[in-house]
Amino acid sequence: MKGYIQIYTGNGKGKTTAAFGLALRAVGAEKKVFIAQFVKGQRYSEIDAFEKYLPMITIKQYGLKCFIKTKPTDEDIYEARKGLKEIKNLIAESDYDVFILDEVNIALFYNLFTVDELIEILKNKKENSEIIITGRYAPQELINLADLVTEMKEIKHYYNKGIMARKGIEF
Amino acid sequence: MKGYIQIYTGNGKGKTTAAFGLALRAVGAEKKVFIAQFVKGQRYSEIDAFEKYLPMITIKQYGLKCFIKTKPTDEDIYEARKGLKEIKNLIAESDYDVFILDEVNIALFYNLFTVDELIEILKNKKENSEIIITGRYAPQELINLADLVTEMKEIKHYYNKGIMARKGIEF
Repeated sequence: MKGYIQIYTGNGKGKTTAAFGLALRAVGAEKKVFIAQFVKGQRYSEIDAFEKYLPMITIKQYGLKCFIKTKPTDEDIYEARKGLKEIKNLIAESDYDVFILDEVNIALFYNLFTVDELIEILKNKKENSEIIITGRYAPQELINLADLVTEMKEIKHYYNKGIMARKGIEF
Repeated sequence: MKGYIQIYTGNGKGKTTAAFGLALRAVGAEKKVFIAQFVKGQRYSEIDAFEKYLPMITIKQYGLKCFIKTKPTDEDIYEARKGLKEIKNLIAESDYDVFILDEVNIALFYNLFTVDELIEILKNKKENSEIIITGRYAPQELINLADLVTEMKEIKHYYNKGIMARKGIEF
């Protein structure tokens, strides 16, 4: 299969952050980067940073302001499927070198679309393109397909000590 | 103890990358970031990206062009100790909010300085500062001290399939 697939999964901190670090490294090497954030629709500090300092990176969100609580709404599904359709065309036909599909595993976990639909899209990626997939619960079918898989494993987390998420550090 | 310590360790890809993603997020929230790269002295794509797009981030390297092979040279030790001295003053007295001590675990692994020396420095960090430590083989003393620890675990890696490190992706 053409191109490469990397997966960052697991329950530890650093999955999205690693993908964004990779975006930074890629633009340092003059690569074109497209970031699709699934499920998330909030305005995070990293989005401010991308818009302000790295405007050559395209970042699009396909999620709502409120994270899915227990069951996804029709709107959650609509947003995710819109994203899926957009990346389908971009992955097959655009000249982006690196695609970051942030939290796509969570979209799969909530059945916003199926892993088979995603795999079909990934199979059409171009030579030398790089697809980065993040989120907990990476399904085995994706792991089998991937070239590189890192599990971010939580060893210790300050949330467990009652420290809340902090702006500029977690979001 | 004042401030926070995060550690990214383990044998998987994504440790330095996550730290750099965090640097990006932090500047998105107007935080001041200092990056110290230990052991490494090569010019990576991320350094190009920082200089070109994020000049407000200070990045300094305290390592040689060639990575330590089997035993560190006097020059390796000199460079690392110079870095240690510089971060000591900066952590205790400067107004940086976030310090990334990249590959400092490797410096410890090669005994370029001791974990006790490092811990002394970390203890003097200021209120609300954030210290990010990366590298394989994080010593237990550091893990005990940290607020957050993620192990990046290699599940699958394309190097094992004979694919070499690629510019803009790995370096």
